[in-house]
Amino acid sequence: MQRIENITAATMSDDAGYGLIQDAVVIINDGKVEFVGPAYDAPATPTADVVDGNGGLLTPGLIDCHTHLVWAGSRANEFAQRLHGISYQEIAEQGGGIKSTVKATREASEEELLALALERAETLMSQGVTTLEVKSGYGLDLENERKQLKVARQLSEKLPVQVKTTLLAAHAVPPEYKDNADGYVDDIVSSILPTLAQEGLVDAVDAFCESIGFNIEQTRRVFEKAKALGLPVKLHAEQITNQQGAKLAAEYQALSADHLEQLDEDSVKAMAENGTVAVLLPGAFYFLRDTQKPPIELLRKYKVPMAVATDANPGSSPIHNLPLMLQMAATFFHLTPEECLRGVTVNAAKALGENSRGVIAEGNYADLALWKCQDAAELTYQTGVNPLQTLWFSGVAHDRVSKPWSAR
Amino acid sequence: MQRIENITAATMSDDAGYGLIQDAVVIINDGKVEFVGPAYDAPATPTADVVDGNGGLLTPGLIDCHTHLVWAGSRANEFAQRLHGISYQEIAEQGGGIKSTVKATREASEEELLALALERAETLMSQGVTTLEVKSGYGLDLENERKQLKVARQLSEKLPVQVKTTLLAAHAVPPEYKDNADGYVDDIVSSILPTLAQEGLVDAVDAFCESIGFNIEQTRRVFEKAKALGLPVKLHAEQITNQQGAKLAAEYQALSADHLEQLDEDSVKAMAENGTVAVLLPGAFYFLRDTQKPPIELLRKYKVPMAVATDANPGSSPIHNLPLMLQMAATFFHLTPEECLRGVTVNAAKALGENSRGVIAEGNYADLALWKCQDAAELTYQTGVNPLQTLWFSGVAHDRVSKPWSAR
Ligand SMILES: [Zn+2]
Ligand SMILES: [Zn+2]
Repeated sequence: MQRIENITAATMSDDAGYGLIQDAVVIINDGKVEFVGPAYDAPATPTADVVDGNGGLLTPGLIDCHTHLVWAGSRANEFAQRLHGISYQEIAEQGGGIKSTVKATREASEEELLALALERAETLMSQGVTTLEVKSGYGLDLENERKQLKVARQLSEKLPVQVKTTLLAAHAVPPEYKDNADGYVDDIVSSILPTLAQEGLVDAVDAFCESIGFNIEQTRRVFEKAKALGLPVKLHAEQITNQQGAKLAAEYQALSADHLEQLDEDSVKAMAENGTVAVLLPGAFYFLRDTQKPPIELLRKYKVPMAVATDANPGSSPIHNLPLMLQMAATFFHLTPEECLRGVTVNAAKALGENSRGVIAEGNYADLALWKCQDAAELTYQTGVNPLQTLWFSGVAHDRVSKPWSAR
Repeated sequence: MQRIENITAATMSDDAGYGLIQDAVVIINDGKVEFVGPAYDAPATPTADVVDGNGGLLTPGLIDCHTHLVWAGSRANEFAQRLHGISYQEIAEQGGGIKSTVKATREASEEELLALALERAETLMSQGVTTLEVKSGYGLDLENERKQLKVARQLSEKLPVQVKTTLLAAHAVPPEYKDNADGYVDDIVSSILPTLAQEGLVDAVDAFCESIGFNIEQTRRVFEKAKALGLPVKLHAEQITNQQGAKLAAEYQALSADHLEQLDEDSVKAMAENGTVAVLLPGAFYFLRDTQKPPIELLRKYKVPMAVATDANPGSSPIHNLPLMLQMAATFFHLTPEECLRGVTVNAAKALGENSRGVIAEGNYADLALWKCQDAAELTYQTGVNPLQTLWFSGVAHDRVSKPWSAR
């Protein structure tokens, strides 16, 4: 049993805002929150280990609800080529773009992929992340999608972080199915998806519904199969063009629709009615130099919960920095700091179908982050200096190492 | 004596590009680089400690040539207020903006300021920074400008990092001189600047030349005094409006003119003729949601060296992340990765008047960074995962701690 005291708790338990409790006490027992409330209401715990929060801020552990964390290869060279004026077209013709990541990921061993993914996951953990989602989508065949998801599962065995896996076989059409997207979707629904679901590797199913990805009918086929298997769905929707993907996602009670720069009002309503979370990805918006922002005012008007995530991936968001995403969501999309922090806690949990995380509440898992700051807005306002002190994963405390280097 | 081998060296020694040497050897002796070149040319060093670079990349230690690192207080609350729709005007009227930072910095003890600045400097070091510039400018009177510069000097006593101090007394008009900027400039040139220069606290002199700052004539008076004292100058110029500040800076052979979003072609020519470096600050551009970019094509055309820095400060760039600045300089300003890396090495050294740093060359200080990456473009392309392995400060090696947290 642990008793965290001398803290302000941002519980996220209200409908909006931080759900702040001044001079709070949180009691952890058996990996769960046994009590959260003001100190004057807290029960005595004579045998508990006392953690002095030194007046800091306690929040739920952060949740990064949209990542593509498992990949090999480097796209740095093509990034450089673009800055030297070489066109997307030329880069694609020489095998660049997502093709190069698929090739490198297929060629990599499970061990190699794991080593790369571990480093990325540990980076996110050092920023306060206790749960992260990991998508496949660079394998694009049974064997390699399996390899990616197995690596994702291993992350949660090697590290205290909780990992939720998402099958994104419908990310791109693999070379074997060139000009035959329908044939690849046949493969997904008849083989890849049911096989990997059967193997317990799939927590949710996603697709890239886009003019340059899969169309609405192909996406519907993937969703139908997921539904038949009892798996929740999510969707990359309305990023570059409006394909009415979010509406389709809502029709299938999707956990989330993600990106949403081109989202229209009818689709916002459909999301609101079906409890589909809007996952905002300001890193991709920034890195792709996008100018069309998601319709934040409409999402607020219809009370669609907004989450914020890194979209960590080698093509459009080579950024493993969740705190920076809060700052960018505020700077680019004008989210308030309250909305930003809710976007990586309570609403991110909803986007993953996690009912016992993302809020500091009695009975929830004790996934907690203690920060050296007084004002919760600090977490959105600044980036670089890391105010994280201690992170609890289901009640197990890890202290951040304060000296990032050592003399030889 | 140390011998670093099995590396690619990005020496930055050419006029452009990385100055790459494949399969390089660098020999360090007595804090300086004694040899840099291809392995087949390297002399035998039977007594040297051998450092195996594991095929990584060796660059000069990074240089952050424009920071306001020493301050107290927090502006998170006013950041939140702005996002909740409260105007700059209202925030200023309630004592917000730079006033609040000046107030908090004046009230803070030297020890408090040092503790805050140490954390920020260590964050930058963990990203590969071996030299950083620190400006005053939140004291705005003799006693408090002295306090800021003393803290800056102490950073280099407490940490291996090299610190260059810049007196920025002409940052804002303090409350004591409300509506009397000329009176405050009198104070600067007759008392603050000569006194602190005499005390050895001033490596360079800067001013904020802007419609909302000091005009050209006031700036000239500060520069004249600096010149009389034999101190180099720099200038915050052409950020919001074109005041012809960069041209004035060039006239005084300024080390650098910084920001430069509104810079015109004649001023670019003047900078080129006088060896004045253009310091680009993409963090402030981003955080202030600016849209007017500095004239990169003109700076290239006239071969003005371009540096890149954090501008770390609580008002317009609460960002202690130099690698992110490279990515933003590429993403927002379309700098090439070569220009970005030169911007935090060779050209940043020029912006500080440092002739023996920023380039891996025989006789230079052995300020070096070893990175786990093959392609130097990686350093610009990605952010979040930290590829830094080892950092040398005048030949003294520090290894980065790879596990950022520890189980309790
Ligand atoms: Zn994605
Ligand atoms: Zn500045």
